Amino acid sequence: MTSTVLRTGILARLTLAVRPSYGPLVLVDRSAASLVHLASWCKFFSRSMSVQTGFTVPPPKSLQQPLSVPKRLLLGPGPSNISSRVQEAGGRQIIGHMHPEMFQIMDQIKAGIQYAFQTTNNLTLAISGSGHAAMEAALVNVLEPGEAVLIAMNGVWGERAADIGERIGAKVQKLVKTPGESFSLQDIEKALVQHKPVLFFITHGESSTGVVQNLDGIGSLCKSHNCLLLVDSVASLGGAPLFMDNQEIDILYSGSQKVLNCPPGTAPISFNERACQKIFNRKTKPTSLYLDMGWLSNLWGYDESPRKYHHTSPITCLFALREALAILAEQGLENYWKLHQENAEYLHKGLEDLGLKLFVKDKSMRLPTVTTIAVPEGYEWKDITNFIMKNYQIEITGGLGPTIGMVLRIGLMGINCTKANADLVIRALKDALEHCKKSKH
Amino acid sequence: MTSTVLRTGILARLTLAVRPSYGPLVLVDRSAASLVHLASWCKFFSRSMSVQTGFTVPPPKSLQQPLSVPKRLLLGPGPSNISSRVQEAGGRQIIGHMHPEMFQIMDQIKAGIQYAFQTTNNLTLAISGSGHAAMEAALVNVLEPGEAVLIAMNGVWGERAADIGERIGAKVQKLVKTPGESFSLQDIEKALVQHKPVLFFITHGESSTGVVQNLDGIGSLCKSHNCLLLVDSVASLGGAPLFMDNQEIDILYSGSQKVLNCPPGTAPISFNERACQKIFNRKTKPTSLYLDMGWLSNLWGYDESPRKYHHTSPITCLFALREALAILAEQGLENYWKLHQENAEYLHKGLEDLGLKLFVKDKSMRLPTVTTIAVPEGYEWKDITNFIMKNYQIEITGGLGPTIGMVLRIGLMGINCTKANADLVIRALKDALEHCKKSKH
Repeated sequence: MTSTVLRTGILARLTLAVRPSYGPLVLVDRSAASLVHLASWCKFFSRSMSVQTGFTVPPPKSLQQPLSVPKRLLLGPGPSNISSRVQEAGGRQIIGHMHPEMFQIMDQIKAGIQYAFQTTNNLTLAISGSGHAAMEAALVNVLEPGEAVLIAMNGVWGERAADIGERIGAKVQKLVKTPGESFSLQDIEKALVQHKPVLFFITHGESSTGVVQNLDGIGSLCKSHNCLLLVDSVASLGGAPLFMDNQEIDILYSGSQKVLNCPPGTAPISFNERACQKIFNRKTKPTSLYLDMGWLSNLWGYDESPRKYHHTSPITCLFALREALAILAEQGLENYWKLHQENAEYLHKGLEDLGLKLFVKDKSMRLPTVTTIAVPEGYEWKDITNFIMKNYQIEITGGLGPTIGMVLRIGLMGINCTKANADLVIRALKDALEHCKKSKH
Repeated sequence: MTSTVLRTGILARLTLAVRPSYGPLVLVDRSAASLVHLASWCKFFSRSMSVQTGFTVPPPKSLQQPLSVPKRLLLGPGPSNISSRVQEAGGRQIIGHMHPEMFQIMDQIKAGIQYAFQTTNNLTLAISGSGHAAMEAALVNVLEPGEAVLIAMNGVWGERAADIGERIGAKVQKLVKTPGESFSLQDIEKALVQHKPVLFFITHGESSTGVVQNLDGIGSLCKSHNCLLLVDSVASLGGAPLFMDNQEIDILYSGSQKVLNCPPGTAPISFNERACQKIFNRKTKPTSLYLDMGWLSNLWGYDESPRKYHHTSPITCLFALREALAILAEQGLENYWKLHQENAEYLHKGLEDLGLKLFVKDKSMRLPTVTTIAVPEGYEWKDITNFIMKNYQIEITGGLGPTIGMVLRIGLMGINCTKANADLVIRALKDALEHCKKSKH
């Protein structure tokens, strides 16, 4: 089909369409085409859209080319490359989102998230969206307008959470640290006493700064101040120790596209009983129906009642997530944590041997999954990332939010977390430092 | 790994982990394991999580089984089966969501949606979620608290839109018809005069009732009453004539998993200039950051400024959507419309020959993609759908929302829209009517 044909108008086109030799009608049962059919079709057409109508937009030329996806080694802060088993699952033919076999797969995903989060929470599921959607799901379900929420801000994720809190009409209180720092129990307790929030938000793996937050003690502190603890583990899950139940985290969410090596599009989330008490005793409905846990809890088998249609879940993404969680369960969380820690330390040493400075000074605060390097003096960060993309087909990135212009970020996550990849990115950086011009003074 | 090993505690496990013979550590560079490493790892562990910690959740047994996905012919109201080309695209290795090649693919998707919608709107994109998320995106971006919205309700989709409108704090006015009916220009004009809404919502393909709404004239009517027109085309896009620009539709959205034969997880949406005027001149921020068109418009290249990170888009779902739109462009909209109309009529005749009664009496109001049959007298609808699933591995479904218990629903969409499938489902229904017990009187 060409746009010229389109422009000849509907009736001419319909007459053409009964010609047996007409090309594009491959799916049409041509033998059934008759004058009777044509007449009914024309009537249908004129009924459906009156005289002023015509095609105004031809099929786009850009879609006539085959889909082109270059090969990339994704060593940025995410997404990371997908494992072949997960890829295969994501490319499967689908079944219905309300078929019993789909519910079984969802139950398996729930069990896999419970393992990954180290929780027995019944309300554990995958949000049909990115990690960002899970952040929003947590906040819109827990918070009601006028309630106080305390947000720990030491990078971009706290900024985002504060933004969402404000949109909901919550009273947003900010506990701010310079990007690259983390929060002490004393910092947090002081703010809890001052603001009396119903919810405290903190990021475990701050991928914009490369900081891992020590979570020990925060849960019980929040509990003693009658406050729920919400933790973002998008960039840390599977790569740094995390125990939802033992660390008394009330709400925890993550993403699929980091350590799990799964395509983006689903996001694990879990609520404990304290959190459920809050969200199922709201006075107002959450501002989002799409993310409403009243519906989603039922869809994911939280209660005993039959599952009701809410939305069409991203079926192939759930297949992929199921496989990604199965791989994590096979490898074992503690092995994965150890792997990420060891390879991060190996990378850090290599970077320092190159003369580069790690952005996070305190070794114990370095996130094992995403490493931040201070932009080497005199260089434009973009020159370096562009050089490495162009010459090595490797993605490493600059900063995000408050760290833009300050850092370079390297992620070694899941299947990408190997010493070979660490060596490769070190070599690429060495090459970049030799070849990129120093443009700043 | 077994749960027994897990229960032996972290330190025992760590000691085990340096044994070269230790099984599951396949990804760990064992040669690097040394006492120095072990010491640092133990220190790291004890720092990350104090003494009370231990693993409480073993890897789930259900994830030790391979992923099992039965083969199904999906002839319900959606999702429909995926074409092999789309499947292949959805199973590809990914690139970064902010790579120029990804933006190029997004541009191609935008062009494909513009063709499918017959619009030249610059603000045309795919939402990272289901059709339901697109409905929410339309409403939360256009409506501000206190504004009046008029919702045409003749099935489940109007109910959903009204629910979202209320959550946002809009003044929701309902224009109600019995399920199975549609709206006349007179109905609509009367309600526009009475309620003076800023937005009117109507469903083109009411898949819960099987009704297609004639859209002619509604756009100009809304315009003359200073009201924006929002149309849901999730179940109709590609299967029934629709011209966004010529029909003066201000906001239009759809889904990926119906006629497009694409996995669920993305949803096309488009806003015209009138709609942009409204959404970019809001006094308040939309209640959702995830769906905020201020961010998403930039991410999809609406303005000239560099694209900024907002969320990680569902990369493989976008690959799949790109291919689904390319197939639609190759086949040609008018051929697809004709195909769906002809095969629906063929199916309708076959069903009536069986003695079944179509739920929508007026032929001109029958949705070509989803056919509704009155539940045959004396039968439990669930017995029929279960029989057909069990004996034919074909999905047809019961009603939804207000039509539960009233109808059976059959979808012939995209690659599933063939006379052979119509014949097959007619034969399956005949068989079901013969074998299912009449339990009602």
